This record gives sequence, structure tokens and C-alpha cells, in this order.
Amino acid sequence: MDASAITALTFDVFGTVVNWRASVAREIEALGRAKGFTLDWLKFADAWRALYQPAMQRVRSGELPWTRLDDLHRVSLDKLLVDFAIKGLDEAEIDHLNRAWHRLDPWADAVEGLGRLKRRFIIAPLSNGNIRLMVDMARRAGLPWDAILGAEVAHHYKPDPEAYLTAADLLMLPPAQCMMVAAHANDLQAARKVGFRTAFVWRPLEHGPERAAATRPTHDFDIMADDFVDLARQLGC
Amino acid sequence: MDASAITALTFDVFGTVVNWRASVAREIEALGRAKGFTLDWLKFADAWRALYQPAMQRVRSGELPWTRLDDLHRVSLDKLLVDFAIKGLDEAEIDHLNRAWHRLDPWADAVEGLGRLKRRFIIAPLSNGNIRLMVDMARRAGLPWDAILGAEVAHHYKPDPEAYLTAADLLMLPPAQCMMVAAHANDLQAARKVGFRTAFVWRPLEHGPERAAATRPTHDFDIMADDFVDLARQLGC
Repeated sequence: MDASAITALTFDVFGTVVNWRASVAREIEALGRAKGFTLDWLKFADAWRALYQPAMQRVRSGELPWTRLDDLHRVSLDKLLVDFAIKGLDEAEIDHLNRAWHRLDPWADAVEGLGRLKRRFIIAPLSNGNIRLMVDMARRAGLPWDAILGAEVAHHYKPDPEAYLTAADLLMLPPAQCMMVAAHANDLQAARKVGFRTAFVWRPLEHGPERAAATRPTHDFDIMADDFVDLARQLGC
Repeated sequence: MDASAITALTFDVFGTVVNWRASVAREIEALGRAKGFTLDWLKFADAWRALYQPAMQRVRSGELPWTRLDDLHRVSLDKLLVDFAIKGLDEAEIDHLNRAWHRLDPWADAVEGLGRLKRRFIIAPLSNGNIRLMVDMARRAGLPWDAILGAEVAHHYKPDPEAYLTAADLLMLPPAQCMMVAAHANDLQAARKVGFRTAFVWRPLEHGPERAAATRPTHDFDIMADDFVDLARQLGC
């Protein structure tokens, strides 16, 4: 991999930069303790995430017009409040819980790795999360993005090709000068299909220790990295 | 001015954050010295800037479809190369000169002021400059933006109301929780018309010492500041 051919790195965020599962569980647990209810906090996080792809699919398919992720998350959350029999929350409390996704914690290597990568490359999220979500997350976690790109500027959810191509266009770069960084093969495959370079970062704990993969995956991407610091090292930063 | 009512500050950039005139003059002078031509460097900068509003007006009026500022700058530059009888530049040199606007220097107080303001507020450019231009400028100058907003995400040039309203929408804020910061009254008047709060920052040297205003202007905006550090002080940062 010739790093000098790359100008910008674009990042998947949920699962790749941040640990959504532990963070969402922490948020619902904090609310439960404050309001006096209890449930399986991790199961709640998994159930919310399970509604993520179906919700975006309604936009991808054209069933829904463009709808930002916060609003899709809210529809899912309203369903979960019924499914988990959570009662007695007022609108401000539900909205605060919905914004749990704005308060996700980064993986331990993410801030250091991004800081090193930023010295040499333009770095930007290319996430399905909306701009305000990404801004709040970055301010809280100290993620040093150069710009916030992603689904909301394209009005297309990944893996629609427009999501990647809009980011490259806004960066005024041919796709081959962009490298997509993600912990998910399908995201990288879609990026590669439109000409991006690809870096796979292994996040074995995304779905929890019980579902952790025991062995390192062997995909066919330009870079295979163990974490963001390893990615920086492999790219000469 | 109750600062607690404000969540985000959006900034005009050319003239407000950076000194475009001295910077563009420095860039054309460097090229002239390298290539062996000479001219009135500041006059060249002023001539380029004089074509700025007419170029954007062609987009605002609908004569041109959405066109990013780099491309408008290039049309103007091609004209200036003829007007100033600059010959012998190859495509790479012309493109590098066109990107002089990506390499503008901040006013002396800008980086410190933005750093202080960022502790309390979301900060983002709301400029007519395109995203890549803003990214390159911020990386070079150390401007700590939370996101890059502005004309390119709205496909409308200021002072079209859509430019301001799109920024507020992407930040998920009512306009009244946004404050536009600019050194130009017409920009602030347009922002105020759609509900933004307004802060005028005095930049008497934008057009050079000969055209500097001797006295501080007295406009009717929420805040009148001498520079970004003064703005931070007035907003309690």
C-alpha cells in the first residue's frame, strides 16, 4: 500500500471509532437507576441496534424520504419503550435517551490514532450518523475531525454508492485518493466498488465478549489493522 | 446578550477569520518572483476579490447551476491572467494559484479566540468558501472547527436565506440559538432576518491600511466586538 497515493481517510464510526454497545447500555442503565426501572441493559442496546439497518432500509428503498438518523433512532426507541415496558418518561427524558448515540465512548486507541493520522491525512467521518450527532460525539470524546461528512450531506445511507461518492466530491478528490476505514466488510466492499482504497480495522468486541471472534479475519482489503494506532503505523504516521 | 441562549456560533471567514488581501498578495508575489514577473500584488488581490460577488450572483440568480467557489475563483483567475498579462503558467501552477484561497492567514486573534469560544459553543464556518477550501485553510492555520458548514452544504450562496437556515437545520437548532459572527453588516442583516443572533467583529484592515475606517462602526447587532478574543470575553468564555 503506497500511502503517498492517499489524501483523505474517511471513517465508519459506530463500531469502528466508538463502542456503541457498552455506551448505549451505560446510558439506559443510568436512566433506569435514576427513574427506578431495571432491565438487561446490553440487551436493550442490542435491540436498538437491531432496528438500525431496517430503519435505514426504508430510506434507501424510497419508502421514506430522506430522514436523519436521530429521527430514525427515535422511531426505534419509541417501539423499544413499549417492548421493554419502560413507562413514566417525559419528552425531555426520551429525547435525552435518544441522544445517547451522541455520547458514545471511543475505543481506547481511537483518539491517539486519529491524532497521528491527521498529521498526514485529511480525516473525516463517513458515517450514517447525522452531522449534529457527530459534532456532539467529537466534542465530548475529543475526536479531531477536519470535517463532518457522511450520509446527511449525501442524503443517502451507506452502502448506497452516493454516500461515498459525495464525500470524495466534497473533498475534491478522485475516489482512489480516499481510503475508507471500517470494522465492517460490507462497508468497505461498497466503498471499494466506487474506487476507494480500503482499510479494515478489527474490533472483535463490538458485539460484546460473548460474540467476539477468536481469530483475526482475513479479508482482501488494502490494509488490515488491529486498531487505529496500528493503522497509523502502517500508513507511516 | 444572554450567552446561555446561544448553542452555536457560525462564522463568516473571508475578512472575518482570515486576512484574504495580504495572503492572496503574498501568494501571487511568491509566484511572480519564482516565474520572473512583477505587478502590483495588492491590486491583483483586490481585482480578484472584486470579481467575487458578481461571480456568486450568477449562481444566486439562477444563471448558473450550483458551482463551488473554487470553480468561480478559477473563472475569475483566468480573466485576471489576461488582464494582468501574466503568461507562461502551466495548468498545475494556475491551479496552485487558484488555491491561494485555501492558504489564507488568520488574523492574529483568530486561533486563540476560536479556541476559547469552542469550549462553550459549537463553532463552524458559514462561509461561501467550499468545504475543501475550508478544510485546507483550517489544517494550515489551526482553526479548530467542529464542522464545516456553509454555502456548499446548502447549494446557496450567502446572503440567500437558505445558506443560514441549512446550517441551523444541520445543527438541529432553532435559528435563535445560532449566532452569526461576521465583519460585514450585510451578512449579519441577512442572518438576523432568518432569526439568528448576530455579532459584528471589527476588521478595519480588511481592505488595507489606506481604506481603514478611522472610527469603530456603530451597527445595531447583539454584540459589537473588537476581535475574537473580545468576542469570547463578551460571551463569558
